[in-house]
Amino acid sequence: MAGALSNPEVFRYGIEIYEAYKKTALPSDILEEQRKVKEADLVIFQFPLYWFSVPAILKGWMDRVLCQGFAFDIPGFYDSGFLKGKLALLSLTTGGTAEMYTKTGDSGDFRYFLWPLQHGILHFCGFKVLAPQISFGIDFSSEEERKVIVESWAQRLKSIWKEEPIHCTPPWYFQE
Amino acid sequence: MAGALSNPEVFRYGIEIYEAYKKTALPSDILEEQRKVKEADLVIFQFPLYWFSVPAILKGWMDRVLCQGFAFDIPGFYDSGFLKGKLALLSLTTGGTAEMYTKTGDSGDFRYFLWPLQHGILHFCGFKVLAPQISFGIDFSSEEERKVIVESWAQRLKSIWKEEPIHCTPPWYFQE
Repeated sequence: MAGALSNPEVFRYGIEIYEAYKKTALPSDILEEQRKVKEADLVIFQFPLYWFSVPAILKGWMDRVLCQGFAFDIPGFYDSGFLKGKLALLSLTTGGTAEMYTKTGDSGDFRYFLWPLQHGILHFCGFKVLAPQISFGIDFSSEEERKVIVESWAQRLKSIWKEEPIHCTPPWYFQE
Repeated sequence: MAGALSNPEVFRYGIEIYEAYKKTALPSDILEEQRKVKEADLVIFQFPLYWFSVPAILKGWMDRVLCQGFAFDIPGFYDSGFLKGKLALLSLTTGGTAEMYTKTGDSGDFRYFLWPLQHGILHFCGFKVLAPQISFGIDFSSEEERKVIVESWAQRLKSIWKEEPIHCTPPWYFQE
């Protein structure tokens, strides 16, 4: 961000970013990313799953781009988030095969791992979330198998605008 | 990492890092962090909660330092993870007050947000996990209130070696 701190005595990162957003004092790369998000009807996050979440570089994008004032405010989150009316979708590849996740007992819990991203970040900003696209076993697949994976993703994209969002509130996720 | 790729035809990041670890070809900053982890009996991760998770820079530390071969192998994870015998603890500060999390209905779900970190990363590497230290409302607290927060954390640390680890497997977390 450019210019003086809004409170030089107590540095509070979130508040400084919020103030910088309102003064259009964020760096130009962030403004450019925010412009792209604003124009999008559907944002697809394509990433390799690292530690059951996004890689650090994509977390950094979320930390910096989806700032208070732009993506949400307090109040102004979840169904009132500023990106409401838009769709988001996590498209992820995993090193391990689907069977490996089943064996270690994590496959059924995959949605638990995705919940902080889908509910805590995307839904918080107002996005409606489409079902994740999970391409398992990329590290162990042949060229031929990877073509099948890409083809099925391409097929899904043809009718993506007809899809209904998933529910990602806690009761649905955790059968409360 | 230094030296040639183990498979220059198909670049697979995880596998290259795994091979580099075995050949001691990882960068010296990573080796230095791994040395510190190896010496520690208890690793405390102190961070401000960003998007219900660790900030990108700490995610990057986890992505890079806790690599296959060092922290786990397949097989060699969860209770057999290579960091077994060690304790880990998430100590986090939040901008919002505890009341704000309650109001938005997320307070009860706080443990759901921490589960991917505590189970998916720390337990996966073999750590036993101590209860998280959560310091709420740092953005809104007075100097006096912050002193109380630090003092209670200091008090807890005095008897930290007597604490029993929490359970962070899915049935306990989600009452399955």
